Amino acid sequence: MEKAKMYGIGVGPGDKELVTVKALRILKESDVVMAPVMANGEKTAWGIVKDYIPDKEVIDCFVPMTKDKEKLKQSYDAICDTVETYLKNNKQVAFITLGDPTIYSSYMQVNDEIKKRGYETELIPGITSFCAAAARLNMSLCERNESLTILPSSYKDVREGLRQKGNKVLMKAGKEILQVKEMLREENLLDKAQMVECCGMPNERIYRDLNELDSKSSYFSLIIVKE
Amino acid sequence: MEKAKMYGIGVGPGDKELVTVKALRILKESDVVMAPVMANGEKTAWGIVKDYIPDKEVIDCFVPMTKDKEKLKQSYDAICDTVETYLKNNKQVAFITLGDPTIYSSYMQVNDEIKKRGYETELIPGITSFCAAAARLNMSLCERNESLTILPSSYKDVREGLRQKGNKVLMKAGKEILQVKEMLREENLLDKAQMVECCGMPNERIYRDLNELDSKSSYFSLIIVKE
Repeated sequence: MEKAKMYGIGVGPGDKELVTVKALRILKESDVVMAPVMANGEKTAWGIVKDYIPDKEVIDCFVPMTKDKEKLKQSYDAICDTVETYLKNNKQVAFITLGDPTIYSSYMQVNDEIKKRGYETELIPGITSFCAAAARLNMSLCERNESLTILPSSYKDVREGLRQKGNKVLMKAGKEILQVKEMLREENLLDKAQMVECCGMPNERIYRDLNELDSKSSYFSLIIVKE
Repeated sequence: MEKAKMYGIGVGPGDKELVTVKALRILKESDVVMAPVMANGEKTAWGIVKDYIPDKEVIDCFVPMTKDKEKLKQSYDAICDTVETYLKNNKQVAFITLGDPTIYSSYMQVNDEIKKRGYETELIPGITSFCAAAARLNMSLCERNESLTILPSSYKDVREGLRQKGNKVLMKAGKEILQVKEMLREENLLDKAQMVECCGMPNERIYRDLNELDSKSSYFSLIIVKE
């Protein structure tokens, strides 16, 4: 039976229970799991699913935190070469990614390259960090006719984005958190902002008031601004 | 043991497998499930979970499709009165909602009112329709520094929203789909748009080219515009 296929599987933002029934089924059916490893050695996505599939073959994928396009391409090509060795042997590959694969996931570069190489791929949606953060704060992100804009804090026009109408989510504030806080103050949005750090993880922290913020926060910080 | 509590549970966009492990656990633990009934009598959210909890007590919640605020308030108050009869008796209530409770869910009106009445509530995130639609199209919604704006088609400044930088999702185009198509053409965005109707449901339909669109589509249509 032909089953050479790669699945890009969203495993949600961190809580082991925020994995879908579909993600678990496909992980169990797959021959091998590709797991991203962060620069500090952490395997956050694997940590979310490992207890469900303890005996599964797992391959670490190292992606450097660099903006050097040539280095990134080399890393992704090497990952794709590994994936391809399995696909060539008619194996099913599950590539896990934090949150959802369609929202700021570097997995999509692997997905596009593997498609280019002529193999079938499929995406399995996951719980996004912003939905989990809003749930944790027990608040809506958008209701009725409100719009919602998702902005990466590293977005060069982030101030312009903040000036748009509607509600906003600022993602990956991480290293620039104090600059983001200052920008929110300048735009008179600080009082409308709340933040969740490491949502659903053991070190989760909630800030109902961003004035409390005085030091560098985690890469996994998420700010919600309601109009 | 004190367990009077209402959970607002996102059950995802339609595919029965796109329910989380957490949603299923809480549904099974709850004493009663509140299920929204649409104007045409359909119980879409209940249809997604009913096979997992066939013996659970389920209460239909009728919410009229009206913009009359007074009528809406009466409907929500009646729903909250029903919820409260269970909470008063120390029962755990699971209120199911399509997609995610923080994204355009009228459930939040029930959540806010039940909190006001002094009871504990908690939100359980679900897979959003836009993540499921993008996965179905095998494409990202946003990568790297791109922004993403979610716009309800009924949003009065939808044209202004379409003129913002970044990628867009147009939700609930439904009845106004041909006007939306015309607006996309006028804004030179028609060639950058793709659509999924009834994503993950038996009557799902994909439009890679919106020029193919010539009749009224379902309420559950979702358009993705990539820059």
